[in-house]
Amino acid sequence: MSNDKSSDSSPGHLHRLVLFSDAVFAIAITLLAIEIHPPHHWHGVPDLFGQMGPKLLAYALSFAVVGVGWFSHRRVFARLTKANGGLDFFNFVVLGLIALLPLATELLWEAGNQALPVYIGLVALIGVAMGLMWAYAAFVGKLTEPMPTAEAWFVWLRVTLLPGLMCGLSLYSLMHPWAWILMVLLLVGLGWMSKRVIAPAPKAA
Amino acid sequence: MSNDKSSDSSPGHLHRLVLFSDAVFAIAITLLAIEIHPPHHWHGVPDLFGQMGPKLLAYALSFAVVGVGWFSHRRVFARLTKANGGLDFFNFVVLGLIALLPLATELLWEAGNQALPVYIGLVALIGVAMGLMWAYAAFVGKLTEPMPTAEAWFVWLRVTLLPGLMCGLSLYSLMHPWAWILMVLLLVGLGWMSKRVIAPAPKAA
Amino acid sequence: MSNDKSSDSSPGHLHRLVLFSDAVFAIAITLLAIEIHPPHHWHGVPDLFGQMGPKLLAYALSFAVVGVGWFSHRRVFARLTKANGGLDFFNFVVLGLIALLPLATELLWEAGNQALPVYIGLVALIGVAMGLMWAYAAFVGKLTEPMPTAEAWFVWLRVTLLPGLMCGLSLYSLMHPWAWILMVLLLVGLGWMSKRVIAPAPKAA
Amino acid sequence: MSNDKSSDSSPGHLHRLVLFSDAVFAIAITLLAIEIHPPHHWHGVPDLFGQMGPKLLAYALSFAVVGVGWFSHRRVFARLTKANGGLDFFNFVVLGLIALLPLATELLWEAGNQALPVYIGLVALIGVAMGLMWAYAAFVGKLTEPMPTAEAWFVWLRVTLLPGLMCGLSLYSLMHPWAWILMVLLLVGLGWMSKRVIAPAPKAA
Repeated sequence: MSNDKSSDSSPGHLHRLVLFSDAVFAIAITLLAIEIHPPHHWHGVPDLFGQMGPKLLAYALSFAVVGVGWFSHRRVFARLTKANGGLDFFNFVVLGLIALLPLATELLWEAGNQALPVYIGLVALIGVAMGLMWAYAAFVGKLTEPMPTAEAWFVWLRVTLLPGLMCGLSLYSLMHPWAWILMVLLLVGLGWMSKRVIAPAPKAA
Repeated sequence: MSNDKSSDSSPGHLHRLVLFSDAVFAIAITLLAIEIHPPHHWHGVPDLFGQMGPKLLAYALSFAVVGVGWFSHRRVFARLTKANGGLDFFNFVVLGLIALLPLATELLWEAGNQALPVYIGLVALIGVAMGLMWAYAAFVGKLTEPMPTAEAWFVWLRVTLLPGLMCGLSLYSLMHPWAWILMVLLLVGLGWMSKRVIAPAPKAA
Repeated sequence: MSNDKSSDSSPGHLHRLVLFSDAVFAIAITLLAIEIHPPHHWHGVPDLFGQMGPKLLAYALSFAVVGVGWFSHRRVFARLTKANGGLDFFNFVVLGLIALLPLATELLWEAGNQALPVYIGLVALIGVAMGLMWAYAAFVGKLTEPMPTAEAWFVWLRVTLLPGLMCGLSLYSLMHPWAWILMVLLLVGLGWMSKRVIAPAPKAA
Repeated sequence: MSNDKSSDSSPGHLHRLVLFSDAVFAIAITLLAIEIHPPHHWHGVPDLFGQMGPKLLAYALSFAVVGVGWFSHRRVFARLTKANGGLDFFNFVVLGLIALLPLATELLWEAGNQALPVYIGLVALIGVAMGLMWAYAAFVGKLTEPMPTAEAWFVWLRVTLLPGLMCGLSLYSLMHPWAWILMVLLLVGLGWMSKRVIAPAPKAA
């Protein structure tokens, strides 16, 4: 978009991008709770939690989703050594989807099962957007520390699939027991691949 | 959850975790006030404060709770030298409970005494979650600077008990004078233990 | 405003100004979505998106506007070497306009076309305010790294015009095909000028 | 409150306190606008601004107040070399008052002149709380860089009085022309004192 490369790929750029993203994650995670209001009439604590149960569950779920998103984001950025305008763009798409989570959460506790595909779709889209960001950083922009191609592809796979699969399987496992088995298989499989693909890293200084 | 330890236990990880937590604390503390709205009709400043009194009191209380929470969080993290995925997890649980404080505050000013156990329960839970985080960091993940075991347990005790006890005793002391005596005994006792257990620290560079 | 220059032009000042601005950008971008609420009645996902379409479009547009604003802001600040009270002032004006974007977005999805001039006007004003900030930093406060005057003026032109023109042309191009041509000409022209005016920068350390 | 001084007075403590405060300022400043909603019926842009005028004016005023508060806060912290638990406490009081500004702004645009004393009172209180923070840091906690006592008192006077006086005089000068004269006298007087009291600072590195 411009050739003033000195300002675009400096370490300060990467640092500022991380700060900005962290702020968006933190705000999204905190706003999740702000739309929950206490019921107008309630008698005793069990009744209170009975009435607020679905909202608190939806809150806990979305908190976990943002947590997994932040975790993936941190792991992606820990592997980058510089930033550029393209990374800015893909990062913005990720953040734009993260910021929609409070809305999807509200949908979830209002419409329940009917809203499940929309909710899971958004979470899966966050994974896809983060996978695109990683693919751009690793394969197009060459913004990462040196790493074997197989490892780069494995990170891409994990970043892309994990949010949607974990969220979808968690939710459907509330209804269908087989989903638990798939979830365990998924985690064990990724753990096994992780051990195979990623070389043992030297200790950080 | 993965063995790419180089990115998970780097000092950058710890720094980013602190930044992220600070943002959540700051947003929770500022959102406390946003649900307070001025009354529609009021005549003169005393009437205004009379009508808004309970909300402002609840705001001040929750501000103090978040303040104590931030203070404890900062003291825990000042003793850590690195971070890992487990710390991420426990820290997220703490932040998830902190983000519920605006909701509990709203409950407090709407339902009053009836909501006290819920409110104090949330504050106590924040302490417990922070204690778990510390216990994980000190005893399981070995993420702290070297320190005597007795000191580590004392920090755990203080972090776990202080928020709930302070908040509970402060609130009940408004109704029962004996709570003041317990609060003073608690602070004096912790201060005495602190002097016994924690070795005099060298000056920071 | 004062002559205690040691604290006003220190590198810490610049760093704190960047952190503060990033937080405002992040909050504005995340609050954009918080005013969107799901419809009360909907049947199936297509109906849901049909009802929420205008709001989601307005959200995406404003997200892009804040993104371009953050991008310009980062590029301006990457060229600064210090800060002073005047920069604080102009930066505050920029942030004050950015913080109005959620309001303008709400206006856009409620009033539609009628609100377009107000919306585009605000975006154009953000560009003008950022241009003033740059002009102050480069020509009055001498806060930048050394650069040719032509380059400084080109940065000013780009920062000032880009937000309003891009936003206006994007919106009108939905109705009038000639706007696309103008937009392409604008980007090509600026890219050509950029190559002519800005000297190839040395690699960042 | 504890004798583990190594963690309480480290430079990291000061840095974290600044980050946290910046986040609160940024959120307070951005939430100012979020309570403003567009009118339901309006015909043309002048009517829109006519209806929204008082809210936008109150927003601009409060934005300026938070701006002055951030400016003072930054100048106070630029003179500190370390932090302790006492500074945490006073800083929290300042932030607790800053976070009430969106509420006071809402009061201002709803009740108008009747709310002026409350609004100005809050702003004056922010100045007083910041003055207490500075007095604690400079005279009790000895947290500042070395400076002459006269300079420390002058900083205290400026930090304490400026917010309330500037805000009060600005507002009343809309009704009474003599307030302008007082405001000019105040600024000239402080500028003159500043030159007399504060020694010329060496250039920052």
